[in-house]
Amino acid sequence: MLNGEMKLARPLRWGMVGGGQTSQVGYKHRIGALRDNGAFELVCGAFDVDAERCTEFGTRIGVQAERCYGDFHRMLAEEAKRPDGVEVVSVATPNFTHYEITKACLEAGLHVICEKPLFFTVAECEEIEQLAASKNLIVGVTYGYSGHQMLMQMKAMIEQGKIGDVRMVDLQYTHGFNAADGDHLSEAQAWRVNPKTSGSTFVLGDLATHTFYMAHRILPNLHIEKLMCDRQSLVPAHAPLEDNAHVLFHYNNGAVGRLWTSSVDAGNMDAQRIRIVGSKASLQWSAAYPDDLHYQVQGEPNQHLHRGMPYLDEQALEYERMGALHTEGLGDSWANVYLSIALAIDAANRGAKDELEAVQYPDVKAGKEGVRWLENCVRSSESGSAWVAYQ
Amino acid sequence: MLNGEMKLARPLRWGMVGGGQTSQVGYKHRIGALRDNGAFELVCGAFDVDAERCTEFGTRIGVQAERCYGDFHRMLAEEAKRPDGVEVVSVATPNFTHYEITKACLEAGLHVICEKPLFFTVAECEEIEQLAASKNLIVGVTYGYSGHQMLMQMKAMIEQGKIGDVRMVDLQYTHGFNAADGDHLSEAQAWRVNPKTSGSTFVLGDLATHTFYMAHRILPNLHIEKLMCDRQSLVPAHAPLEDNAHVLFHYNNGAVGRLWTSSVDAGNMDAQRIRIVGSKASLQWSAAYPDDLHYQVQGEPNQHLHRGMPYLDEQALEYERMGALHTEGLGDSWANVYLSIALAIDAANRGAKDELEAVQYPDVKAGKEGVRWLENCVRSSESGSAWVAYQ
Amino acid sequence: MLNGEMKLARPLRWGMVGGGQTSQVGYKHRIGALRDNGAFELVCGAFDVDAERCTEFGTRIGVQAERCYGDFHRMLAEEAKRPDGVEVVSVATPNFTHYEITKACLEAGLHVICEKPLFFTVAECEEIEQLAASKNLIVGVTYGYSGHQMLMQMKAMIEQGKIGDVRMVDLQYTHGFNAADGDHLSEAQAWRVNPKTSGSTFVLGDLATHTFYMAHRILPNLHIEKLMCDRQSLVPAHAPLEDNAHVLFHYNNGAVGRLWTSSVDAGNMDAQRIRIVGSKASLQWSAAYPDDLHYQVQGEPNQHLHRGMPYLDEQALEYERMGALHTEGLGDSWANVYLSIALAIDAANRGAKDELEAVQYPDVKAGKEGVRWLENCVRSSESGSAWVAYQ
Amino acid sequence: MLNGEMKLARPLRWGMVGGGQTSQVGYKHRIGALRDNGAFELVCGAFDVDAERCTEFGTRIGVQAERCYGDFHRMLAEEAKRPDGVEVVSVATPNFTHYEITKACLEAGLHVICEKPLFFTVAECEEIEQLAASKNLIVGVTYGYSGHQMLMQMKAMIEQGKIGDVRMVDLQYTHGFNAADGDHLSEAQAWRVNPKTSGSTFVLGDLATHTFYMAHRILPNLHIEKLMCDRQSLVPAHAPLEDNAHVLFHYNNGAVGRLWTSSVDAGNMDAQRIRIVGSKASLQWSAAYPDDLHYQVQGEPNQHLHRGMPYLDEQALEYERMGALHTEGLGDSWANVYLSIALAIDAANRGAKDELEAVQYPDVKAGKEGVRWLENCVRSSESGSAWVAYQ
Ligand SMILES: NC(=O)c1ccc[n+]([C@@H]2O[C@H](COP(=O)([O-])OP(=O)(O)OC[C@H]3O[C@@H](n4cnc5c(N)ncnc54)[C@H](O)[C@@H]3O)[C@@H](O)[C@H]2O)c1
Ligand SMILES: NC(=O)c1ccc[n+]([C@@H]2O[C@H](COP(=O)([O-])OP(=O)(O)OC[C@H]3O[C@@H](n4cnc5c(N)ncnc54)[C@H](O)[C@@H]3O)[C@@H](O)[C@H]2O)c1
Ligand SMILES: NC(=O)c1ccc[n+]([C@@H]2O[C@H](COP(=O)([O-])OP(=O)(O)OC[C@H]3O[C@@H](n4cnc5c(N)ncnc54)[C@H](O)[C@@H]3O)[C@@H](O)[C@H]2O)c1
Ligand SMILES: NC(=O)c1ccc[n+]([C@@H]2O[C@H](COP(=O)([O-])OP(=O)(O)OC[C@H]3O[C@@H](n4cnc5c(N)ncnc54)[C@H](O)[C@@H]3O)[C@@H](O)[C@H]2O)c1
Repeated sequence: MLNGEMKLARPLRWGMVGGGQTSQVGYKHRIGALRDNGAFELVCGAFDVDAERCTEFGTRIGVQAERCYGDFHRMLAEEAKRPDGVEVVSVATPNFTHYEITKACLEAGLHVICEKPLFFTVAECEEIEQLAASKNLIVGVTYGYSGHQMLMQMKAMIEQGKIGDVRMVDLQYTHGFNAADGDHLSEAQAWRVNPKTSGSTFVLGDLATHTFYMAHRILPNLHIEKLMCDRQSLVPAHAPLEDNAHVLFHYNNGAVGRLWTSSVDAGNMDAQRIRIVGSKASLQWSAAYPDDLHYQVQGEPNQHLHRGMPYLDEQALEYERMGALHTEGLGDSWANVYLSIALAIDAANRGAKDELEAVQYPDVKAGKEGVRWLENCVRSSESGSAWVAYQ
Repeated sequence: MLNGEMKLARPLRWGMVGGGQTSQVGYKHRIGALRDNGAFELVCGAFDVDAERCTEFGTRIGVQAERCYGDFHRMLAEEAKRPDGVEVVSVATPNFTHYEITKACLEAGLHVICEKPLFFTVAECEEIEQLAASKNLIVGVTYGYSGHQMLMQMKAMIEQGKIGDVRMVDLQYTHGFNAADGDHLSEAQAWRVNPKTSGSTFVLGDLATHTFYMAHRILPNLHIEKLMCDRQSLVPAHAPLEDNAHVLFHYNNGAVGRLWTSSVDAGNMDAQRIRIVGSKASLQWSAAYPDDLHYQVQGEPNQHLHRGMPYLDEQALEYERMGALHTEGLGDSWANVYLSIALAIDAANRGAKDELEAVQYPDVKAGKEGVRWLENCVRSSESGSAWVAYQ
Repeated sequence: MLNGEMKLARPLRWGMVGGGQTSQVGYKHRIGALRDNGAFELVCGAFDVDAERCTEFGTRIGVQAERCYGDFHRMLAEEAKRPDGVEVVSVATPNFTHYEITKACLEAGLHVICEKPLFFTVAECEEIEQLAASKNLIVGVTYGYSGHQMLMQMKAMIEQGKIGDVRMVDLQYTHGFNAADGDHLSEAQAWRVNPKTSGSTFVLGDLATHTFYMAHRILPNLHIEKLMCDRQSLVPAHAPLEDNAHVLFHYNNGAVGRLWTSSVDAGNMDAQRIRIVGSKASLQWSAAYPDDLHYQVQGEPNQHLHRGMPYLDEQALEYERMGALHTEGLGDSWANVYLSIALAIDAANRGAKDELEAVQYPDVKAGKEGVRWLENCVRSSESGSAWVAYQ
Repeated sequence: MLNGEMKLARPLRWGMVGGGQTSQVGYKHRIGALRDNGAFELVCGAFDVDAERCTEFGTRIGVQAERCYGDFHRMLAEEAKRPDGVEVVSVATPNFTHYEITKACLEAGLHVICEKPLFFTVAECEEIEQLAASKNLIVGVTYGYSGHQMLMQMKAMIEQGKIGDVRMVDLQYTHGFNAADGDHLSEAQAWRVNPKTSGSTFVLGDLATHTFYMAHRILPNLHIEKLMCDRQSLVPAHAPLEDNAHVLFHYNNGAVGRLWTSSVDAGNMDAQRIRIVGSKASLQWSAAYPDDLHYQVQGEPNQHLHRGMPYLDEQALEYERMGALHTEGLGDSWANVYLSIALAIDAANRGAKDELEAVQYPDVKAGKEGVRWLENCVRSSESGSAWVAYQ
């Protein structure tokens, strides 16, 4: 149970690249980082490609004008000169810029919290992973849904054998907000369907990497051995990138899985779902109702577990804030993700290796595995949607 | 709206092969056929492999002892001698017997109502289709869920353009009742996992042919062009047949589809689901809540339509029995299926060709298309789950 | 588990008064009575106030023209002359006729199955109760929802102490189909809001007596000690009778209860709900999803029980027809109600007193208790919605 | 749409009385006040009856030790001496202390944000209302659920005539967390069932005042004219105060209402519900799924509206944070409540009368109306649960 008590000796000095006024995701970063836990304080930012808009917006969210920077290189240079300079930077810019910005921050000795999909290639991820390790710096990835407590409950129950052996993993992240896209795309939509700015995927990277990560967090011992990906641009304006994709996979333990991701699933408001089928029981969760977990033992009444209840596992209660009967939302999940990254950074700063190992957070490896999965999906897709060995 | 008024001049004289006391599905046939509509009266049966049990049970459900037959050959022979002999026979026996029994009935000049999956091969289906046509006889197939009215509502709304162009079809029929199967299988389970008695599939034929048919009924203009099937025996005792399968398909209009079927989806009680995604909206239905239809227009509030309401299309109200606010169940759906087949038989008997064409019912062609789909699934599966052109 | 096997030596010869072509409830009686169980066969009827329409309709539902009678007196007289004359009569006419018709039938030596609210006064009920007893005849009451199996599951669980001591009973039967009533009412609506034809209540008698009966069936040991009723004609055209009412009550064991009934609850499609709160847990059921039962133990995950599952109590499985995963609807409930009444009639006919005691069915006493409850509601209402001692 | 931009020139200097480490509600105040909007900064507190625990906890949530005070009188005295002294104080202590603390704060020239139920009597509320008015100070009341946006959507739709004339209001706030209370009560439970510390009610004040306020916020033109309250101590340890109560009421426009509140509704996790029935349609909302609003037009498909969608009214989008598809929880609602109170304080400080009028927030009048309602409930209850004219 969290009670708003500070977990760090003092808040980390935090800055952002991207996440400006028009950004879809910037506010979620601030909602997550600036929660009452005193883990972060926002000290600077290169919030926008437009320097003027950056300062105008930055000051309106409480950053001193002189620490609102027109570009991130200048931010790194100027902040480095200050005794109270930034310590950790969040990267909330379009995908193609993540690698360059992250690298520059690490080289400047700063921890990084980067958006997904982390980079374009596994090779880039590995390079950054090594760079961060060599400098004792943390790279966190904002899989923002992964802080929901009931996911930890799923994990705990599976570890305890409550569903038996895992046999089938059913993942979905689909919405319909691009179903009607015509020829004119919004800016945020335009970069997403351009391989130069988005990478080699649209919805697979934009949506499905979230769900893929959560499944991996819940089932750390399952590894994909082969995979098949079939993807389409059901709205022509999205070509050459996919707005709809189906992925099937076989795991090392004999279990199978499937994933559907789409941004043309018209009218669907129950976007993200995870079902884990075991030999005795199944667990089911939806991001639209994150406080609910469905536990279905074959041959017994179905069970509905509620967030915050004392019968939950301590893993699920660790980040509990509101208490039973009181709903939590995506902002709470982001707060949990940010808090876990803060704990990792703090442990790293203090050289507390064991503590660092113990913190569960979406790390650079998690980012890398997301990119690896995308590479395998693309490889299958480009081989005529053939089954491919997972590499 | 049905009101229990007789649709035929007199009830058809009806008999059964199979569907005996221990049978899983026999009672559903009688619930369907013997509804108050006066369409059928049960006059005879070869209900059981065991002749004694046949008579014992047959008399208990109101059949005269002398018309309870130890085997179906004798039933056909004896009934042929009577002036009030049987006119139509339902076949509710294990799969491997369907073809032989159906053929014998047709040759005896009787209409047939046969269980799914219809036969083992498309070739058999075509032979029977021609035999029936040559004799002006009807072969109906008991896709028992297909009588639910809200499926007709889906069909009507799609015809009227209410969802735009169809882009994605998502089908599921999964339950978990075989999740715990050990080495000892029940009789009804044993024949299902033996290729000699079940055919070349288990759950694909046992479960998924239902959902496949319903989707086809709703979307008569969509035809699969290529398909991929990946199937497993997640419980070893089910090998060599699959207890879990994933099928992906591409339609002629550019739409894509997927289907999951399983009998090891532990704890799932919301077994059968259909979602049709269009360019403007989606429609979603579950067999567990058959009176509800979900209509989701992108950018508008989601809608929940209820069976029996005056705002529904006349296609959906045609078989309405209970009226708004009053639930209908699977028995009502079976009654509708049986009634539609009776109407077809009656039209055929009267040589009323136009009427016959107008009746929507699961006919021999529907049975054949189910078998064709299974053949394609098996072909893909046996080619290493490769994509295959639909034949 | 029912399997369609005959429970009686032969079907009872059954007739109807009312329930004609335009009747709202007539078809439900036939759906219930004529189920495959061979308990009833429809032999005659005075289906309609209009003699011509009676015959026209009666023959269309399979009754011989000569046994379609223009009025019920003639029906009783003529049938009495036949060796194969009617044995049991269902009364599905407007409320004000129930008493007279029922009495005439009993005097003619026939069993009766009468619609609710049974009669206008408790005194009438007592008179009929004695008359029936003196002639060894059954009077059943068609509380048509009371055949749903999950109600029997509730009863069993409460008996077994699964919810602890009952503390609160929450009942609701509200719909909105009269929300927009203007000055012109349909025929079926007109008699319902006229005290001469409907009795001293509208929705309390028309709707709430159902729910009241079900609660009583589930909780046979709870008796109301005092009660308060507040009722309104929210649509002026319904005055002087209520279209909306709230009733509060105190039970003999210290438990309290409330009931809301309305026909102006605009848009509500989840009309009838029962919640029983105990000291340890609650049970909740809705007639809109009759296969589901919610069992909520304080401090544990909520449970969802499904009809047909082997974990249910034998009381709930006794009338099971379709089997787990397969929905049942209101027609199945009516069939169960009619079957239970047939079993009672058969036991009475055979003088099998113990068997008769063992049959659970809505009997004349249940009808009387419904009327008593209405009398108490009206008495409270007419005393300025004061609390009144239950008489 | 909120985007984290500061609404005030600078954060208000904020302190708390109560809400210490063991408090149930203290963290919710901080979650609400300390949201990223820069509206409040926590500068001091008398968090606990135990002075030591106060400082220990206060410093752990980031307050300077010297500004953690052993009692609130000292806090007011010391802070008054500082140039950067506290400006607004939240009161999160047991009910019986609210009046004294609020009065002292106002007399010290500070704005107050007080817990519900505001005070013990309407007379106290009126005194405080006048005191605050005379000093141009704000008294806000933390009806913490009232910040949920979909409540504003309800309000907007009703204003626009979307449901027609309001006819029935159905309110509920029930949970079961005290169902098993034995003789030993927790501290937080003990003061709640003692009239000296809780006031003349338990669940009516503790739970139902929330729902009552929300209904009033949505339906500002409806006023209760008469009321009936029946209340019980279903668990003896809660006597003499009620743990279960039913209230019925008649409004000035002819509409009726009911409310059920309970803390012994075993197993109920869908605690707080509001249904407004109009002549054309109804609206329904539950605090357990605060992002969903159900709009049910009689005779049309039921509609499900989702928070954050562009089709919502601007009143509902004003406080939108996460965007469509992304859940918000109770913490977001509290943040909205606190933000609205900050806007009111800021307007008052600037003497901006029109702005102040325009801010919708739970003000002292709202607190007073809650207390008035409690007084009427108690008066009815003490008159043998008779109907009483609302005073
Ligand atoms: N974790 C999540 O739930 C989630 C949700 C949405 C987006 N995202 C990810 O966040 C990233 C941003 O997505 P978005 O939807 O906010 O994009 P967007 O186009 O809406 O906003 C991008 C923001 O970055 C700024 N920007 C662009 N280039 C910049 C540069 N070189 N320097 C500084 N600022 C720059 C823009 O001015 C804008 O403010 C993407 O990687 C996306 O995949 C993640
Ligand atoms: N439409 C549906 O919803 C549905 C549901 C279940 C089963 N089915 C189908 O129904 C068929 C029967 O399945 P089941 O589950 O009832 O099987 P089952 O094993 O439970 O019952 C088979 C019945 O057929 C009888 N039988 C077997 N061989 C016979 C013969 N040669 N002559 C006469 N009787 C014979 C058996 O005695 C038994 O009564 C299968 O084709 C199955 O796929 C359909
Ligand atoms: N159990 C239930 O669920 C349920 C549902 C609806 C109605 N009801 C009850 O059923 C009864 C009938 O209601 P309804 O809605 O069908 O009414 P209705 O007005 O729709 O139909 C009444 C029927 O009775 C016939 N009738 C009237 N007087 C007659 C007479 N003297 N002799 C023969 N026939 C006569 C009419 O011609 C008509 O066919 C009422 O008591 C009502 O409370 C029960
Ligand atoms: N708005 C809501 O949703 C909500 C929820 C819960 C409680 N409440 C209300 O909040 C108030 C507190 O309830 P709670 O459940 O947190 O109670 P609690 O007993 O859990 O906590 C009370 C807190 O106040 C402190 N306190 C008591 N007297 C004090 C004093 N004189 N000076 C300083 N601190 C003092 C205690 O040390 C403790 O920290 C009550 O009025 C209650 O009705 C509101």
